Amino acid sequence: MNETELLNQIKSLIGEDEISDDCASFEFPDGKILVSSTDMLHETTDFPKGMTDFEIGWMSTAVTLSDIASCGAKPIQILAAVGLDNPKRLYEIMRGACFCAEKYGAKVSGGDIDSHNELTIVTTGFGIVEKKNYLRRFGASVGDAVCITKIPGRAQAALDGYEKYREFLITPKPDVYEGQKIAESGASCMMDVSDGLALSLYYIAETNNVGIELDLSSAELPDVDSEKRLEYFLYGGGDFGLLFCKPQTSLSDLDIDFTVIGKIVEGSGVKLGSEKIEKRGYTHSFE
Amino acid sequence: MNETELLNQIKSLIGEDEISDDCASFEFPDGKILVSSTDMLHETTDFPKGMTDFEIGWMSTAVTLSDIASCGAKPIQILAAVGLDNPKRLYEIMRGACFCAEKYGAKVSGGDIDSHNELTIVTTGFGIVEKKNYLRRFGASVGDAVCITKIPGRAQAALDGYEKYREFLITPKPDVYEGQKIAESGASCMMDVSDGLALSLYYIAETNNVGIELDLSSAELPDVDSEKRLEYFLYGGGDFGLLFCKPQTSLSDLDIDFTVIGKIVEGSGVKLGSEKIEKRGYTHSFE
Repeated sequence: MNETELLNQIKSLIGEDEISDDCASFEFPDGKILVSSTDMLHETTDFPKGMTDFEIGWMSTAVTLSDIASCGAKPIQILAAVGLDNPKRLYEIMRGACFCAEKYGAKVSGGDIDSHNELTIVTTGFGIVEKKNYLRRFGASVGDAVCITKIPGRAQAALDGYEKYREFLITPKPDVYEGQKIAESGASCMMDVSDGLALSLYYIAETNNVGIELDLSSAELPDVDSEKRLEYFLYGGGDFGLLFCKPQTSLSDLDIDFTVIGKIVEGSGVKLGSEKIEKRGYTHSFE
Repeated sequence: MNETELLNQIKSLIGEDEISDDCASFEFPDGKILVSSTDMLHETTDFPKGMTDFEIGWMSTAVTLSDIASCGAKPIQILAAVGLDNPKRLYEIMRGACFCAEKYGAKVSGGDIDSHNELTIVTTGFGIVEKKNYLRRFGASVGDAVCITKIPGRAQAALDGYEKYREFLITPKPDVYEGQKIAESGASCMMDVSDGLALSLYYIAETNNVGIELDLSSAELPDVDSEKRLEYFLYGGGDFGLLFCKPQTSLSDLDIDFTVIGKIVEGSGVKLGSEKIEKRGYTHSFE
């Protein structure tokens, strides 16, 4: 059973909208939206061997900040629940978490500690965004440009041994500033690409009931052996860039680094040239 | 090493105020306070044998709602991160979580799922309270009455085999409505008693740099073998009542069930008659 099948079981309890977005949302009477997201990470699955506890704390916080960024929100607070296999690890983990939060304008303001067989960290973050700037996966229109920040695939390349990309795997940098700029500039939808670009493209296509035609002529691919470039770019997980759609006419309003990789079309699926790309990436499997 | 010693290590990172309260807080420009709390529970330590998955979901949510209640806040959203030893458990756990949240006016709006050797649930909740009603552990004055809701000790009695109190252990009811009423009626400080009444009394005394003189003549103790009554009442954990202080002159303004169990005095420590009670209860130990 994969994660999507399992989530489908609880759609009726939580609500379809809530299940399908990166963050939960709550609207205040003054028109601001509180977005929140929680992420559970644990040692054997999520923290590559050789990471320091500081890096583990950083990564745990960055994952949640990336979800908040993908709504166009400004992160304000992080709570960290840490299940410790060894209490001596707490200080460095929290130092990494606090350092990451503060770098992106948020603060670790609380949490819980517990002992656990295997190091387990759950970070929950919340952020604020004006309702008019709040972005979700839904919202794309036919004709919109499909755009990304950063170069997807570098975290996966690092996991496979390309040491020069290690920082993208170990201390990933959430696009918090970029997310707010994208939202303020009138994008139509956004999500992050942490499960791989291809899966995110399919989520956007399916949520909006449209197709996507890719054109990678402007895209920079990871600088790896040539036969792996496209594989990593499309299907590698663990990167913290943003995928967003935006009317072609307003692309010049956006003053950050980004790359147009395609456009929204009528139909369904995600095509590169005449072929549909595969719908695969990082999905958790439950046995 | 116990939990308090471990938390002391990270005081300099998180902030002393943030470490010592049940919830983190964030103040909005309009004078409202967003409070948030996160709790990590896992099967071997926190869920007594024989609990159903529905009850596990309920309890996980109730723990966090109780923290929010202890600030006088109205809970709005719950996020649940669930590390599953068996994916078949998810639906009933989430049904219990949603049922509990909705009963107390909140909604489970998101979360994360993961696979885990041992069932691990982290619930994070958000609530809102007007700044003038926001209660913390700090705020008591000499002369204040010390009051509780409910009868502490029944969860511990149930854990020790008093079946008639099983519901207090298995499906604990957070005093969400009562917490808001207490806050609106001008209490001076509040916290919950989930680690045992004695520990909570000591936290209040130490945080406020005062002493507490108990007078249990009005208090109802758990209906158990006589030699265990006071032990459970003072030192038993797992109950979800609230401990609060309030000026004696305004006690009649509070229209909920509560019991006066003592008063705030100058000095330090917590006395019952001429003797200090022990400072013990449920504290997590890290080896």
